[in-house]
Amino acid sequence: MRIAATRKAHFNAAHRLHNPQWSDEKNRTIFGLCNNPNYHGHNYEIEVTLIGETEPETGFLIDLKVLKEIIEQEVEQHFDHKNINIEVPEFEHLNPTAENICFVIWQRLRKRLDDRFELSVRLWETPRNSVRYPA
Amino acid sequence: MRIAATRKAHFNAAHRLHNPQWSDEKNRTIFGLCNNPNYHGHNYEIEVTLIGETEPETGFLIDLKVLKEIIEQEVEQHFDHKNINIEVPEFEHLNPTAENICFVIWQRLRKRLDDRFELSVRLWETPRNSVRYPA
Amino acid sequence: MRIAATRKAHFNAAHRLHNPQWSDEKNRTIFGLCNNPNYHGHNYEIEVTLIGETEPETGFLIDLKVLKEIIEQEVEQHFDHKNINIEVPEFEHLNPTAENICFVIWQRLRKRLDDRFELSVRLWETPRNSVRYPA
Amino acid sequence: MRIAATRKAHFNAAHRLHNPQWSDEKNRTIFGLCNNPNYHGHNYEIEVTLIGETEPETGFLIDLKVLKEIIEQEVEQHFDHKNINIEVPEFEHLNPTAENICFVIWQRLRKRLDDRFELSVRLWETPRNSVRYPA
Amino acid sequence: MRIAATRKAHFNAAHRLHNPQWSDEKNRTIFGLCNNPNYHGHNYEIEVTLIGETEPETGFLIDLKVLKEIIEQEVEQHFDHKNINIEVPEFEHLNPTAENICFVIWQRLRKRLDDRFELSVRLWETPRNSVRYPA
Amino acid sequence: MRIAATRKAHFNAAHRLHNPQWSDEKNRTIFGLCNNPNYHGHNYEIEVTLIGETEPETGFLIDLKVLKEIIEQEVEQHFDHKNINIEVPEFEHLNPTAENICFVIWQRLRKRLDDRFELSVRLWETPRNSVRYPA
Repeated sequence: MRIAATRKAHFNAAHRLHNPQWSDEKNRTIFGLCNNPNYHGHNYEIEVTLIGETEPETGFLIDLKVLKEIIEQEVEQHFDHKNINIEVPEFEHLNPTAENICFVIWQRLRKRLDDRFELSVRLWETPRNSVRYPA
Repeated sequence: MRIAATRKAHFNAAHRLHNPQWSDEKNRTIFGLCNNPNYHGHNYEIEVTLIGETEPETGFLIDLKVLKEIIEQEVEQHFDHKNINIEVPEFEHLNPTAENICFVIWQRLRKRLDDRFELSVRLWETPRNSVRYPA
Repeated sequence: MRIAATRKAHFNAAHRLHNPQWSDEKNRTIFGLCNNPNYHGHNYEIEVTLIGETEPETGFLIDLKVLKEIIEQEVEQHFDHKNINIEVPEFEHLNPTAENICFVIWQRLRKRLDDRFELSVRLWETPRNSVRYPA
Repeated sequence: MRIAATRKAHFNAAHRLHNPQWSDEKNRTIFGLCNNPNYHGHNYEIEVTLIGETEPETGFLIDLKVLKEIIEQEVEQHFDHKNINIEVPEFEHLNPTAENICFVIWQRLRKRLDDRFELSVRLWETPRNSVRYPA
Repeated sequence: MRIAATRKAHFNAAHRLHNPQWSDEKNRTIFGLCNNPNYHGHNYEIEVTLIGETEPETGFLIDLKVLKEIIEQEVEQHFDHKNINIEVPEFEHLNPTAENICFVIWQRLRKRLDDRFELSVRLWETPRNSVRYPA
Repeated sequence: MRIAATRKAHFNAAHRLHNPQWSDEKNRTIFGLCNNPNYHGHNYEIEVTLIGETEPETGFLIDLKVLKEIIEQEVEQHFDHKNINIEVPEFEHLNPTAENICFVIWQRLRKRLDDRFELSVRLWETPRNSVRYPA
């Protein structure tokens, strides 16, 4: 039985959008308020979805306690109450847009999960804006 | 990196469901309370999802300020605080079911968006009922 | 034991804001898009709160099945899928603002409820706007 | 016009997770608090999605009043205020995980719906955990 | 500066409504489906509100980490994944209506909190029903 | 007719909790992750409630378009996409706890509103934590 299971989690963080190869003026034009050099922040919500076959003995796709721990280690401890630009290593040379944060989270979770699972990650930056990888 | 980005918006409008080729009795039987000749209304919520490749320079799939403006022009200014049957031209000869409203919104947005984006629209008519085009 | 119990319900309706003692121009200036002569509409959500002493035998403030029926009769059947200006008698000479709709609902429920209950009604016109009577 | 339509519903029920072929100790280790022999419970939320072609005469994919009745008969009357392990026959020899409940609901709805519809069911066990069948 | 601070939490539990001094028939008549002898269950949500003066040094009414721990000890560990009728001692001779559960939670929290705080507790039994003590 | 009307709004911002009269160690002990010198952030949601008498001519407590503009000027333009510690003048010597932010918002709105209105402000820092002034 092929099924999808989704677990939600959240973290709070500061960030700014900035391309160091552009002038300050171009950064302000393209990124607007999100380019504020003093940072702003969000309550990020994530939805982690796994797809695969349920295990006959348990009736689970995956034990959600296990998935919850992986999310805590790879996402919450890595991003929560952090300044993403300064304190999350993947963003030393990567602009922390919702798209890039979502992809980094997908990569961190992918390497912790068995190959029998397909993985997708949806990230809400505000209650009105979200991204999903893969599409 | 192929990704999906979603933006939510909303509008309030009045409508009635009616097929002018049917008798009044058949309209009442099929459409029930939704056939009320004096109209009723909804707070419609929409989710506009684009799929495509992120731009390496910005890390964006699309600048959401641009998408927000397109939604304001094509959806909010066109539907908000309107009587859909009387004041939205696409429905002069089209029944304003959620399915048809969703498709009209998809058409209006599609012609404003670059071909590099796939587009889907989800429309919530009430907190319990929604439709999505394409399926 | 003095306690409060709240039950939520909802209805969909069309309305327009209009003061017949004003000119059309003044109506448009004051009420803006809400003055549209062809009506617009909302998914109204209501929260009905009773305050009183719990009954020792049941442990209930009120049997919520009873309260649900009263709300269905006095609110849902009276307002749902209606044009409030035309089809709800209390608004023949009353402007259907959220404030006035809330007060009319409170009056209709008040006369059906035992005097041992205090009553308050909160009405959400959109997810961002609500009113509550009494204050 | 191929489109998706979704209807939400809910039910409250008690359950416990248990594999009778395992020792009590193994059940407690694998299922943790969910193995409590005295049961615990949830407010389950379901989203039923149909995909198909809209009917030209109505502009509907399906009359949602009809879908609502099918959901009431096959899901709400079958699960609401029940102990799933004891009172829902499909679970006499099946562990009532969210995955299995979702699949049973899908089977019950599938046999009531015309073949022209694709069907998927999403089940929320808590606000943070959900499953979807088919994947 | 007198202010209110609210913290949300949740737990899942099974219960049944029953008055042992009544006949089975009267129990079924009054409590309906909620009288099911095999139990049903809910995802309970609670909102704990404290009122008092903020501390000038911290700018906090209360350190929410401290409040979160008290809620975990007094509410989550006491009620989560439990059968309230059988496993929560306060309900050995008390009917576990939302009203009574709310009051028991209030009592458990009240004895852990400094007298400088006023306390109120709101308990959601379903997304449509809630109670609050004190009123 | 005395009634309450509530309008919601939101803003995104970065902040850190810090008392400059304490050692770094004491700040870390008391404020934990919230003391991060590189800041973190939130999607703040606010609910602004006015209480007063409705105007007989309009049926409004206040024209919500007017209230919306005041909130945009006093709250959104002042806080949105800002670093509260660095860029919001009221917090030059004030710790930006939810309690203090709520009170500053109340003060800014109070001076813009007619004396005939009572005012209260609720601020959500996360979906689980909120404060309200006055209590």
